[in-house]
Amino acid sequence: MDTIIKNVKIITMNLDKHVIAYGYVLIKDGRFAIVSDGEPTKEQREKSKVIDGNGKWLMPGLINTHGHPAMSLLRGINDDLPLNDWLEQAIWPYERKLDKKSVQAARNLSLVEMLESGTTTFVDMYHLHMHEFAETIETVGMRASLMRSVIGLCSKEEQDEKLAESLSFAKQWNRGADGRIRTMLAPHAPYTCPPDYIERIVQAARDESLPVHMHLAETRKEIHDYMDEHGMHPLELLEERQLLEGTDWLFAHGVHMYEQHMELLQKHGAAISHNPKSNLKLGSGVAQVASMLKHGVKVGLGTDSAASNNALDMFEEMRFAVLLQRGINEQADMIETYEGLQMATVFGAKALRYEGLGTIETGQEADFILLSPNQAHLHPTDHVLSHLVFAAKGSDVTDVYVQGKALMENKQLTTIDKEKVLAEATLQFNNLKKTLQ
Amino acid sequence: MDTIIKNVKIITMNLDKHVIAYGYVLIKDGRFAIVSDGEPTKEQREKSKVIDGNGKWLMPGLINTHGHPAMSLLRGINDDLPLNDWLEQAIWPYERKLDKKSVQAARNLSLVEMLESGTTTFVDMYHLHMHEFAETIETVGMRASLMRSVIGLCSKEEQDEKLAESLSFAKQWNRGADGRIRTMLAPHAPYTCPPDYIERIVQAARDESLPVHMHLAETRKEIHDYMDEHGMHPLELLEERQLLEGTDWLFAHGVHMYEQHMELLQKHGAAISHNPKSNLKLGSGVAQVASMLKHGVKVGLGTDSAASNNALDMFEEMRFAVLLQRGINEQADMIETYEGLQMATVFGAKALRYEGLGTIETGQEADFILLSPNQAHLHPTDHVLSHLVFAAKGSDVTDVYVQGKALMENKQLTTIDKEKVLAEATLQFNNLKKTLQ
Repeated sequence: MDTIIKNVKIITMNLDKHVIAYGYVLIKDGRFAIVSDGEPTKEQREKSKVIDGNGKWLMPGLINTHGHPAMSLLRGINDDLPLNDWLEQAIWPYERKLDKKSVQAARNLSLVEMLESGTTTFVDMYHLHMHEFAETIETVGMRASLMRSVIGLCSKEEQDEKLAESLSFAKQWNRGADGRIRTMLAPHAPYTCPPDYIERIVQAARDESLPVHMHLAETRKEIHDYMDEHGMHPLELLEERQLLEGTDWLFAHGVHMYEQHMELLQKHGAAISHNPKSNLKLGSGVAQVASMLKHGVKVGLGTDSAASNNALDMFEEMRFAVLLQRGINEQADMIETYEGLQMATVFGAKALRYEGLGTIETGQEADFILLSPNQAHLHPTDHVLSHLVFAAKGSDVTDVYVQGKALMENKQLTTIDKEKVLAEATLQFNNLKKTLQ
Repeated sequence: MDTIIKNVKIITMNLDKHVIAYGYVLIKDGRFAIVSDGEPTKEQREKSKVIDGNGKWLMPGLINTHGHPAMSLLRGINDDLPLNDWLEQAIWPYERKLDKKSVQAARNLSLVEMLESGTTTFVDMYHLHMHEFAETIETVGMRASLMRSVIGLCSKEEQDEKLAESLSFAKQWNRGADGRIRTMLAPHAPYTCPPDYIERIVQAARDESLPVHMHLAETRKEIHDYMDEHGMHPLELLEERQLLEGTDWLFAHGVHMYEQHMELLQKHGAAISHNPKSNLKLGSGVAQVASMLKHGVKVGLGTDSAASNNALDMFEEMRFAVLLQRGINEQADMIETYEGLQMATVFGAKALRYEGLGTIETGQEADFILLSPNQAHLHPTDHVLSHLVFAAKGSDVTDVYVQGKALMENKQLTTIDKEKVLAEATLQFNNLKKTLQ
């Protein structure tokens, strides 16, 4: 049976910035068959489940292009420490104690938070229990790009073993869960993976037509250290070794990059996952995203983990992204409001190399959310695009659909038990604390 | 009858950063008579209305130290224009058409938004219909610092007339509405008020023991223009004319200020209202707030108007304030999490020159809010101070009290009709649009 959502304002996110003031969508087999103004016909209604949107705003589901959902139990731990102390004294001791149960609890917590704030697609870059998470996602119904990331500061044998594990996971799950799961390969970072190892990973990714995800140029110190060792910026080393071309790169952060690097990114179609809140919180700085966009670089937005953010709310990420570019460059028209929305939706889809995702148009995947405009901070309601970027909260999201299936209806999650997830997160965190005492 | 809120986690915001994990408050005559861990005694309970906090978090109501609530109908208007075009083409044409009804509709909209997101005290700097607003606040029950602000680009007669109007309003309403209303005098800005006029206003404020509020050093251009005309930074001119001393100054913004200015502020006990989101959105820059705090300057937080923000959510303001200082200075421990909370509460109270406000301690004004921790983004719940700054949303606020009186209970406003306010905002904005066609 088809599904119709009628009586909605539709933010299509197409190139014309079209907003349908009063319209409906008809969903068939997980895709939009009709996106139209006005009302569905009698014939359409008879063949469909008809849902009244009550004047809500319908927009593409948000796409979170970088994160580590398994770290959400570490939200708020000692976060007044400088970066290195924070990692060494606060985060790593906990992370070393993570087991299957605590990882699962953290990930479920992340799924609840992301769904409730309107995220439909996300990235998980992590090294633990990836198969189990893929199975969870299959059940919960979200869309995700998953990867078993690798750190290469080890023997060649260990490197190979990790890569083999990554590849095996990637091959098994790519296009799995009714096409909702994609996979990537992921060298952790230039400072944790020697160039030769990165080269082997890139070669494997090319062979399997998989995108490659890596942290890049997050902190100034990292770049200084890298230049001391290699005599050049890590992106330049990738270029020199011809590792940028013919590869679908997605770099996380890209805070410390200059004009020539943006040209390299653009030339090779590489994408950036901009994580503004995490970059601020860890004292990393502000990526020159407006400049990247002007260079034609694909830029998506990411939350990074809840340990360094400390939320997984893409509305906040969008707002920070746009406001920062204006403030840092002291220019109110440095970046357009619409570009904020694009980064959180359709540009994010492009950064992750999804086709047919991120806009509300006929033929596109029916991943979308509804927001209730019945809020003081969204009034007067005329300027919907502006409100979505500058005023909306994750909590305004009332309904979440992926592939045309409702994962949240009127604020009730349908495929995951929130109460149970919150209780389990508390339990597992208490256990973790005990192991550290 | 006294009121008891029991079964709450209490964020006292005292100097020891004390959080009472499980406790209660007893309110008598609008003030906290008891703030304690554990449970109220039988005797206490028998003499009180007892409210079960159900494990919620109780913290001081948030204090918004700079704003123009009458501008909320202009939320989201053409906000991709550069600053001057935005003012001239978008904002001022609307603002010139504001009448008593549209101003009232905008202000009520602001009250709803502020209450729902946990603000209990706010500043209104505006020139229209101040008496009517004071009456509204008297009814709604919030706490506010109000002022009829003045622009001095006019004849001496007009200047005097405006100042007289300001003074008359200030004298009539200071300590009005059961002490919930305070008043100030407010020259709009150094570039809209000649030095002589500012001097007359400061003199009047000293005579009446009123604080003085003024925009200061918001944009780089403003400072450059001022230096061209006066040969010095506007703060230095105030110092030269001996207008800083013996006066309770509250400056909004302070984005473009340097080391020597922070020393001047500290020396004269002047306060800054830091408006991070507005400063970013208008391309003004980022105030050096961490440095101000280290200099011992009083710093509160403000949203500015919904036209330049575009929300009035102090949780966001707090988050932006802390994250920006870390990111801009590329130092994760540049500012403490707790300082964010202090700026939004007790430092804000000091900036507005309230005594007995902004902490949960015996004898203090019973202005407080409750938040529900039953949210994924607030789990695990251990790190409450961190969560309030980095993860909490205005929408987590469930209850708001001012002077011990509930203005919101379980998300229901008790003294203002939200539905009516939203409908009136829509109606008045539609009327405004018509007058401009």
